[in-house]
Amino acid sequence: MSYLEQSFSVKFEYKIYFTSSLFDTGNPILANFFKEKPSEALRKIFFVLDKGVADAHPNLVTSIRAYFAQHSDVQLINDIMIVPGGEASKNDTALFDQLVEAVNVYGIDRHSYIAAIGGGAVLDLVGYAAAVSHRGIKHIRIPTTVLSQNDSGIGVKNGINYKGKKNFLGTFAPPSAVLNDDQFLLTLNDRDWRSGISEAVKVALIKDPEFFYWIEANTAQLVARDMDTMNYLIKRCAQLHLNHIAGDDPFETGSARPLDFGHWSAHKLEQLSNFSVLHGEAVAMGIALDSTYSFLTGMLTEEKLQRILNVMLHLSFDISNPFIQINDTESPILRGLAEFQEHLGGKLTITLLTDLGTGKEVHQMDHKLLIEASNYVLNFTSTHAGLPLSDH
Amino acid sequence: MSYLEQSFSVKFEYKIYFTSSLFDTGNPILANFFKEKPSEALRKIFFVLDKGVADAHPNLVTSIRAYFAQHSDVQLINDIMIVPGGEASKNDTALFDQLVEAVNVYGIDRHSYIAAIGGGAVLDLVGYAAAVSHRGIKHIRIPTTVLSQNDSGIGVKNGINYKGKKNFLGTFAPPSAVLNDDQFLLTLNDRDWRSGISEAVKVALIKDPEFFYWIEANTAQLVARDMDTMNYLIKRCAQLHLNHIAGDDPFETGSARPLDFGHWSAHKLEQLSNFSVLHGEAVAMGIALDSTYSFLTGMLTEEKLQRILNVMLHLSFDISNPFIQINDTESPILRGLAEFQEHLGGKLTITLLTDLGTGKEVHQMDHKLLIEASNYVLNFTSTHAGLPLSDH
Repeated sequence: MSYLEQSFSVKFEYKIYFTSSLFDTGNPILANFFKEKPSEALRKIFFVLDKGVADAHPNLVTSIRAYFAQHSDVQLINDIMIVPGGEASKNDTALFDQLVEAVNVYGIDRHSYIAAIGGGAVLDLVGYAAAVSHRGIKHIRIPTTVLSQNDSGIGVKNGINYKGKKNFLGTFAPPSAVLNDDQFLLTLNDRDWRSGISEAVKVALIKDPEFFYWIEANTAQLVARDMDTMNYLIKRCAQLHLNHIAGDDPFETGSARPLDFGHWSAHKLEQLSNFSVLHGEAVAMGIALDSTYSFLTGMLTEEKLQRILNVMLHLSFDISNPFIQINDTESPILRGLAEFQEHLGGKLTITLLTDLGTGKEVHQMDHKLLIEASNYVLNFTSTHAGLPLSDH
Repeated sequence: MSYLEQSFSVKFEYKIYFTSSLFDTGNPILANFFKEKPSEALRKIFFVLDKGVADAHPNLVTSIRAYFAQHSDVQLINDIMIVPGGEASKNDTALFDQLVEAVNVYGIDRHSYIAAIGGGAVLDLVGYAAAVSHRGIKHIRIPTTVLSQNDSGIGVKNGINYKGKKNFLGTFAPPSAVLNDDQFLLTLNDRDWRSGISEAVKVALIKDPEFFYWIEANTAQLVARDMDTMNYLIKRCAQLHLNHIAGDDPFETGSARPLDFGHWSAHKLEQLSNFSVLHGEAVAMGIALDSTYSFLTGMLTEEKLQRILNVMLHLSFDISNPFIQINDTESPILRGLAEFQEHLGGKLTITLLTDLGTGKEVHQMDHKLLIEASNYVLNFTSTHAGLPLSDH
């Protein structure tokens, strides 16, 4: 036997900018981004907008055109595509086809850009179409929700669904840049505003105790929609997610997914509720369940568990929603465990907590203990809702 | 303005094995490959075969099943999918859909493998489906033609066509392994056997003078289908391609494509001939044209040009095929220049020769000089065909 060996490394770099009013003609961020990457090529940029964002910001298309009229390092494709938002956009393969056709019709090459403005689902859809067109067109993400600004929009994954299976088709493809504009958060309804906070609680609980204490001390300001507080939360949450991606296994070749703490039940819950429960809301419920399970196995003290549950209640999350209740070993939510294992491939790997800020992987979950955990959360909610946070 | 910065590197490694009778139960290569990567996961392997290969090797499916019955570190999916070979397979999106559906039906996860056995087109199609399913299923390539064993099957690209545009959809996704089995070469017809040799001449001309001299000295053995000579050619050509990919810009973010020497006209020629001219045959013609153009600009001596043209003639390539003749500035082949530029994005970058083994990039080509080059090749062919190679 003889063989040749191929080995090389590819470096990926991008920035996540934090700004206000990105398309104000006086805002230099986007213009400078293109200036800093001079090119002899004629570069085009094609915008795709989440319909929800376009509706809430009726001047957005006009602002984008005015911005590129003034800053002309790249040539704006005048047609701006509007796609429905939310998970539905990832189920509709016709939208993917339309994006590919746009690349074809507008002659968008590998030196050009596709920019997506919207929630996580639209960013996932557009990111996937960009990643596979011409083997990868440069992609700019402009996330408009708390969830996408602090988590789903800033990472390296994209994808669409196939026959109801989440992200069945997709790639790992780092964006060229992420631009977080806090003005988009102003028009979110309260559920969307709050929903992304649970991903911050999640990453704090597995990675950063100080950040958890900070969230615990700021639940009132977060619920009251104080923008400075939210901006801090988003930036810290984004940083923790970025560190995780860069540090470990960026393209997820292994089986562990610590950032999926609380997610095995959350994914199933979204599906069981036909997506009437938002991802962040489902994650809040999943965190409550797995934190309680951590306590019941003896890994986490009850006092710490109750601080977590109290934070969720003070953030107005409905952690005892009927969809997550586990009454017996046949409860549909338990199928989420098998599906999570299938998604990872290989053996089941679930992150639990040993402390506020410390995760620990386990490889099985006891169904009876999960029923007990579900009952604990239900009982806790009915007795603690509305009480002040315990001192600490 | 504030920002966070993301930066990480991803290392890619794989081996290209050279063997005979890969699926002989006594051949340890594939079995050892899986043993060397122990996994707690249940790993499956799904095979996709090029119909041309399956027809030429009627025992192949039986051999694969016998091999995995004996070597059971991974579980063979008993159903083996057979797809049509050649460029047509990349035009038929239904084949892509069938592959994705197979991933779904057989529960092939990210710890499992999809193996493709076939020519470059089938490897491109299957590689693309593997790369986007579950954000990347491990992919094993078993190329069966000279062209795919020495060039197209060993690199990092995959893709399918869209509305007739070559590789419009695809990714950069290094395989887990490449397995070159020389027994597949035995059943190639003479055109397929010869066709891949032109990619070796190409890479020799831009990278490795000694390899060009070796080819020049071995044209008779190559045409006579001497297997040892062909095995040396394939391995050296593969090594030069691998070095290029690893050294420069593996995922081709820039505009230069030195390995596409001779390819701007070759791509167009394949299309104009409705793919009746094979890729390697078209590349031989493209090399003849661009080498002659190099001479006419004064970059290359006529003696060296004639050595190149003689090698092509001695390898029985029809370098004066009517499809490549450029009679005037409206000749359809010239549209290949604009299309090549569009494919690269940015400015036109063409590799020419200053010596046997040395390429040089230029950014424009003169249409009148191309007409002259075309006439030169035609005249050379009519006066030199059948003559012995010049001494050197």
